[in-house]
Amino acid sequence: MAAAVMSLGAMAQQALWGAPQIVSPEVNPDKTVTFRLVAPNASEVKVTGDFLPTEKIKTPFGEFDGPGSASLTKNDKGVWEFTSDVLAPELYSYSFIVDGFKTADPSNVFQIRDTASITNVFLIDGDPNYADLYKINDVPHGTVAKVWYNSPGLGMDRRLTVYTPAGYETSGKDYPVFYLLHGMGGDENAWSELGRAAQILDNLIAQGKAEPMIVVMTNGNAALQAAPGESSLGFKAPTTQLPKTMDGSFEAAFPDVVKFVDSTYRTKKDKAHRAIAGLSMGGFHSMHISKQYPDMFDYVGLFSAAIMPREDATADVYNDLEGKLATQFAKAPKLYWIAIGDKDFLYQANTEYRKLLDDKGYKYTYRESPDGHIWKNWRIYLSEFVPMLFK
Amino acid sequence: MAAAVMSLGAMAQQALWGAPQIVSPEVNPDKTVTFRLVAPNASEVKVTGDFLPTEKIKTPFGEFDGPGSASLTKNDKGVWEFTSDVLAPELYSYSFIVDGFKTADPSNVFQIRDTASITNVFLIDGDPNYADLYKINDVPHGTVAKVWYNSPGLGMDRRLTVYTPAGYETSGKDYPVFYLLHGMGGDENAWSELGRAAQILDNLIAQGKAEPMIVVMTNGNAALQAAPGESSLGFKAPTTQLPKTMDGSFEAAFPDVVKFVDSTYRTKKDKAHRAIAGLSMGGFHSMHISKQYPDMFDYVGLFSAAIMPREDATADVYNDLEGKLATQFAKAPKLYWIAIGDKDFLYQANTEYRKLLDDKGYKYTYRESPDGHIWKNWRIYLSEFVPMLFK
Repeated sequence: MAAAVMSLGAMAQQALWGAPQIVSPEVNPDKTVTFRLVAPNASEVKVTGDFLPTEKIKTPFGEFDGPGSASLTKNDKGVWEFTSDVLAPELYSYSFIVDGFKTADPSNVFQIRDTASITNVFLIDGDPNYADLYKINDVPHGTVAKVWYNSPGLGMDRRLTVYTPAGYETSGKDYPVFYLLHGMGGDENAWSELGRAAQILDNLIAQGKAEPMIVVMTNGNAALQAAPGESSLGFKAPTTQLPKTMDGSFEAAFPDVVKFVDSTYRTKKDKAHRAIAGLSMGGFHSMHISKQYPDMFDYVGLFSAAIMPREDATADVYNDLEGKLATQFAKAPKLYWIAIGDKDFLYQANTEYRKLLDDKGYKYTYRESPDGHIWKNWRIYLSEFVPMLFK
Repeated sequence: MAAAVMSLGAMAQQALWGAPQIVSPEVNPDKTVTFRLVAPNASEVKVTGDFLPTEKIKTPFGEFDGPGSASLTKNDKGVWEFTSDVLAPELYSYSFIVDGFKTADPSNVFQIRDTASITNVFLIDGDPNYADLYKINDVPHGTVAKVWYNSPGLGMDRRLTVYTPAGYETSGKDYPVFYLLHGMGGDENAWSELGRAAQILDNLIAQGKAEPMIVVMTNGNAALQAAPGESSLGFKAPTTQLPKTMDGSFEAAFPDVVKFVDSTYRTKKDKAHRAIAGLSMGGFHSMHISKQYPDMFDYVGLFSAAIMPREDATADVYNDLEGKLATQFAKAPKLYWIAIGDKDFLYQANTEYRKLLDDKGYKYTYRESPDGHIWKNWRIYLSEFVPMLFK
């Protein structure tokens, strides 16, 4: 009785609003998923997400594939409900649309921010090569830390996400380092949240498929200290309209990060034990950083890289592309890995970049997957790239 | 043009749903706050939050103060809007209620989970003693890490949040350790999110008001490995109906945490350099742990502690309360600090506990604040407690 009073009283005041009374989403044994919402006054409820067949989004620049939607129906208990088809193993995102108003599922506290949008997530398991790597399994877990470093090149303290593998704290050993870069609109949280980087590393290392390594996830927005809400800007709404985006500042100052990591962690401090990869804008960064500093990285990954020609890329880092590539490839990186989806809007730009490499006879590995410019592909690429490192 | 296409295309596909077109909440120069929502089909929109005068919540066990609500009105552009009174400096939480359906503010990506509820947050600054400590200021920042340890006492790997102060990585020094415990429904994320512990520590240390220290935030739910979504349970909805809650398991196994911390970090390994404090259930835990292990902590903080008598507390840890307190106080802890709000539903239980201490002549410090069992008080208590440690 006393415990009940305490529990109730504490909850009434602590968690200001009570817990929902229904389960949503419910992953059924047959891997269909049921979504539910209590919205008695609503006249239409839809669910939209990447588990549904895509719909075309029209823009002034052409049509892109966007997430589809499906209608919920009100059941005899007044609860809106929809059950999906059987879903393939994957981490999925979704939102509800209630009378035209987009909103989170109030029964699902698991949400991930991507730029200025927050969506609910759920995971369907059953694929040992990919989706099962995104789960937290009962294996030894690495540490995920939010760490600040000083960047003289950018003139400020900035935040990193650093993964150290299980056992790092007490092993006394030195480790190789993998620098992992986000895309436009992302930040130092992107790979550890939507990217499931810590889970993928924990699982691949536990299975003996990847070397224990440190993973450093930077913030590639050169004008910012840290992710939205995590810097002295306070709770300022995120935006992709940032100064110093892809102007060469981030790439030029990248040695600040490497210097900090090598002086703070027990690292193997040579090219053979450093990798760099990134998605979209981070692939662009990885391409330019790895050729600007050709003695720094033996492993380079371009995931759906934003490597089309850009007239506004006039910084020193971007000068003499072909000369710098010649230097980089003369030093024979152990792995230069290019991956892209066959529906990616950057597919043609990557084809042209590969032609440039082919014409020069530079050695790289190419991986083409289905689908477009989406996190599903980047988790797949990370799961495939990590086992190839430092072997 | 190319950059614009890339940006648009990337956004259309990466952040699956577009950014909202309005600003909400907007903290105005006079410290009123304007909330806005685009919901053209709604017939009623309210905002509910702790910045509004409280309303009584009726329960079978009595009335408690809950967050108030206010109505938004549709302006001439079809946007729902409400402007608050001038607000005192504080971190506030709120939600919208759209036609009776509780939802997040889609224009505000800053949200914090408390048990099974997610609410939006915003911060009003201007109080150097409290709210300004909750901000990320341009001062040296400590590292916040999610770290796993093995607990033989609980038979599993479990997760901690560990704050190490700025400079820890390279100073070579040993540091005192403050163990900071959450309440019922919370987890190892609670103090670093709603509690703003890292910000409070960063700021107090930078101002010279607190000693540099390590802060270890445990998970006090003895049946769980980690916070919801962070353990091998996967994306399982959070609940307060957990086995092994306040059954003595967590308290008895607490030396597992101290042993891990002392073997993993550079710590000062004696009573004079260890503190323990907690809110609500964590205050109950701190009281029992500190007397069960009377040579472990010289600083004890009970924040709105859940210390009423409980017939179901039959574990060895709970036996011989008075005898163990006699032993603890005979060893003269340097600080035994009890704090509670004058409207807290645990006020009477704390009064009775203090009477027990008074009757025995045990020395403690008492701090009474306004308000009830709310995070506002716990941030205040943390801001006051930390400067008293390790001096």
